Formats: sequence, structure tokens, C-alpha cells
Amino acid sequence: ALVAHLQHHYAQASSPTTGGHQTRLSCASSQATVQDNVDQTRDKLRITITAGPTREPLDPVRYLSNHSSGKMGFALAEAAVQQGADVTLISGPVHLPTPEGVTRLDVDTAEQMLDAVLKALPSTHMLIGCAAVADYRAATVAEHKIKKQSQNGDELTLHLVKNPDIIATAAARGQAKFVVGFAAETQDVEAYAEDKLIRKKLNAIVANDVSDPTIGFGSDENRVTLLSRRGEHIIRQPLPQASKAALSDTLIQQLISLYDQHHSS
Amino acid sequence: ALVAHLQHHYAQASSPTTGGHQTRLSCASSQATVQDNVDQTRDKLRITITAGPTREPLDPVRYLSNHSSGKMGFALAEAAVQQGADVTLISGPVHLPTPEGVTRLDVDTAEQMLDAVLKALPSTHMLIGCAAVADYRAATVAEHKIKKQSQNGDELTLHLVKNPDIIATAAARGQAKFVVGFAAETQDVEAYAEDKLIRKKLNAIVANDVSDPTIGFGSDENRVTLLSRRGEHIIRQPLPQASKAALSDTLIQQLISLYDQHHSS
Repeated sequence: ALVAHLQHHYAQASSPTTGGHQTRLSCASSQATVQDNVDQTRDKLRITITAGPTREPLDPVRYLSNHSSGKMGFALAEAAVQQGADVTLISGPVHLPTPEGVTRLDVDTAEQMLDAVLKALPSTHMLIGCAAVADYRAATVAEHKIKKQSQNGDELTLHLVKNPDIIATAAARGQAKFVVGFAAETQDVEAYAEDKLIRKKLNAIVANDVSDPTIGFGSDENRVTLLSRRGEHIIRQPLPQASKAALSDTLIQQLISLYDQHHSS
Repeated sequence: ALVAHLQHHYAQASSPTTGGHQTRLSCASSQATVQDNVDQTRDKLRITITAGPTREPLDPVRYLSNHSSGKMGFALAEAAVQQGADVTLISGPVHLPTPEGVTRLDVDTAEQMLDAVLKALPSTHMLIGCAAVADYRAATVAEHKIKKQSQNGDELTLHLVKNPDIIATAAARGQAKFVVGFAAETQDVEAYAEDKLIRKKLNAIVANDVSDPTIGFGSDENRVTLLSRRGEHIIRQPLPQASKAALSDTLIQQLISLYDQHHSS
């Protein structure tokens, strides 16, 4: 029933000039058909997804990064296209092909990712922050390669400053109707996720335990719990372990359902 | 003439039981042929090459690394196999296929790379240190993901300690007859290279300017200067800019020639 509902709402909008839908409109005037198509384009669900790690340069050759492969974000983008959404994928440096039908923007740093997200926001219904954004960047980026000799002794102290919180910044703008975060943690995963959900004023958050090497970062499988807010309550939906592709299908369908409930309430 | 000399010395040894060589030995006794083949296997030039970056973990998800793609080291390995050498490639995390005929060992950190190199050294004639080894690693690796909340304020200080110097450690052991370093720099490239050559007691060093984005890290082309020692003198050979594959052919031939001169002197 959910899938049928989604198909009614969004999937047909993905190809407004072809298929059964066009047939249903064939008795309308030419003017009305155009108007209807414009409205459908406007109604088409627009989802922006961030994916992959960010890289924060220390000097021209060195950087700080993390083990995110981008697989989960890319699988979500593919699943969202299959649900008939218009998908923009903002990706850090990864080695993955762009899923068909997805508009992809490549960035390196958290600041570049924030810029890209803020530009996409006004035309975004749902923002899914799946990227593993580096929390910190170098306080100053050295213009030339840092030399071992330039430091006395065998130690180097690196001064880092906090990066902007992309998903919280986006949620605070209130432009996207529905903002979804990810919490990739190695301990107390759901507690951290619940805290993030409330503190960053998100609509939903995907809690992801990355301490298990058989799931999460770099792996092809994943197991997550979806936490969402309904008024004062937090709804927990544990999803079964599955390939990132299969899990993404379930997750996108659940998120679109939550978006619909949120949108109609 | 150089290539002919190399072929005489090494290339035939790569297939001791086939080709013209076997024909030349056909009049010898069976016992002598086996003995000769064993000597040739012993004579075959064994080259160990390090390639790619190293990754130094900060916690289970974050790491320090650099922009080395591994392309130069992998191209050198391929060129060395073509020159009839027995090649071991010790590689950091890269996205490259293993060249045919190459024995590949994958490592993550500088300490793992040092272990692999030291194990390979006793059976190595020539060591080429092409990897962009991280100079520093975290003083302590956090068992769980470092939380933003655990730090007061918006800054984080990272304490790093110096990594082992793989090529200098290997050169000091005196096990490989010929040790070649790489100096990837963004300024004063040849001055730094000359200093490294002498200070680390290498036989040769490849000076690589990585400040130009059209060559060096991640690029398919490269331009280098080969510096080598002949007694008290330093010989400089600038090589023309070329694809990493073509440049590797030239470089490997020059290095084998230098090895021969060194070996016979």
C-alpha cells in the first residue's frame, strides 16, 4: 500500500510525457496538459544527498580524511531515482560511478560541501546528509609541504578547528521541508543518534554502528536503525541487515513515507 | 648498447628454460644445464618497490594521508618486470590493478610498510622507495571515534609523532646493494633531494616537483631529475617530461645501469 501510494505521488512524475499517465490526459486540451505537466514537475520530489568523506588539506600533499567509501550515499541516490525522485548527489572524493539519472557534484572539503548544499537547498524537498564530513580541519593550511626538519624533536602538534556542521546549518535554514542525518558511531550508537536528532533539529536520523567491520564503512552490507520524530515522540525502526542497495530501497521508501506524513500533517 | 647489456645480464634470466638461451646450452650436459639455470635464477635482479601513500589512523574512522595515487610506483614495477627483474611491490592503499608478473603486498601504515620492506630486504638487490610515506602518525590512536563534544571549544590539538624513515632504515641495514629514494617536494626540490641522498646514504634519488598539478601526484605525466653518487660527486640527469609509463621505462633502465656500475666497481 505504501509503495502504491508513493508511485501515485511521485513515480509517475518522473516521466510526465510518457506512459499511462499521458494516456489519461489525452482527452484534455493541449493547454491543460502543459499546465498539468508543469505542476507535476513542481510536485516531483527533489532529494539532495551528501555522500563519501571530506578531505581536509594540511599542506599541498597531506590531508585528514576518513574511511567512508560513499557506497551508502550512492546506493541511496540510486534508490531515490528508482522511486521517481529528482536526485542531486553531492560527493566527497570517492571511487564510484555516478548512478544513472543522478546529478552529481564533486567536492573535497567540508566547506565546499556546505557551499554546494546551501546552493541546492532552495530547490530541495528532502536533504539526506549521508557524508562522513570531517569534524575538523587544519587551523592554517601550509602553502608548502611541511618539512620534518622544520620541527624540533620527533613530535608535531597539529592545530585543528571545527568544521561547519552541514546538516545542522541546513536544518536551521528551514528551506528543505525534511532533513535526514546519519550518525556513524562506534559505541552508544542510538544514544548519540537521538541526541543529534534533537540537538540539530532534524526530522529523522539513521543510526549506523561502524564498529563492526562486516557492516558500515567500506563494506557492501549495512544494518541501521531509523529514528524519527512524531511530535514529542521518537519512533525507532530497526531495519534488517542487508546489502547497501537493498537497505537503501527500504530506507528511501520509509523516508518518503515519513516525508508524506510530515508534509500532510 | 645499454639495453643490449641489460638484456644480456637480466632479461634472459627471466625465462631460463625457454628461448635462445636454452638453445645455446643444448650441447652441455644435463647436470651443467641445471647448475647454470640455478646460477641464473640467483643472478636475476630482484627489485623491491614501495608505492602509494600510507594511512595513519587517528581513531577507528579518521586518518591522516596524502595525495599519492601510487601510479608512479606501479609504473616502475611494470617497467622493471619488462626489464626481466623479479619485482615485489609493497603498496599503501591505492585503487590500481597489480601489474602482470609483480608480487604485491598491501599495507596501510608506515610501520606496516617498514615491516614488509625489512622482510623483503635480504632477498632484494635494489630497493626503490617510491611511496609517499606519512612522516607522522598519531601519538595515540583513539579506540573509539573522537567526539566533538569531548573537546572544549572549537579547537582540537592533535599530537603526532615521527614515523620511522623507511628508506634510511633500509639503507642503514646495508642488505640491499642499491637503494633509491624519491623526493617529492613543492619547492627547492633538487636541494632537498641532494640533502636526502647524502643524509640517508642512498645510492640515487629521484627529485620530483609536485607543486605543478599537471605532473606528479595523481597525474598521468611526470618530470623528474635523477641524482646519483659517483664517489664524491653527484651526477644529475634531468629526464624529459613523459607519461609515467614512458618515464618509468627510462628511469628503470638508468637505475639498472647505475646498479651495474656500482656493482662492478
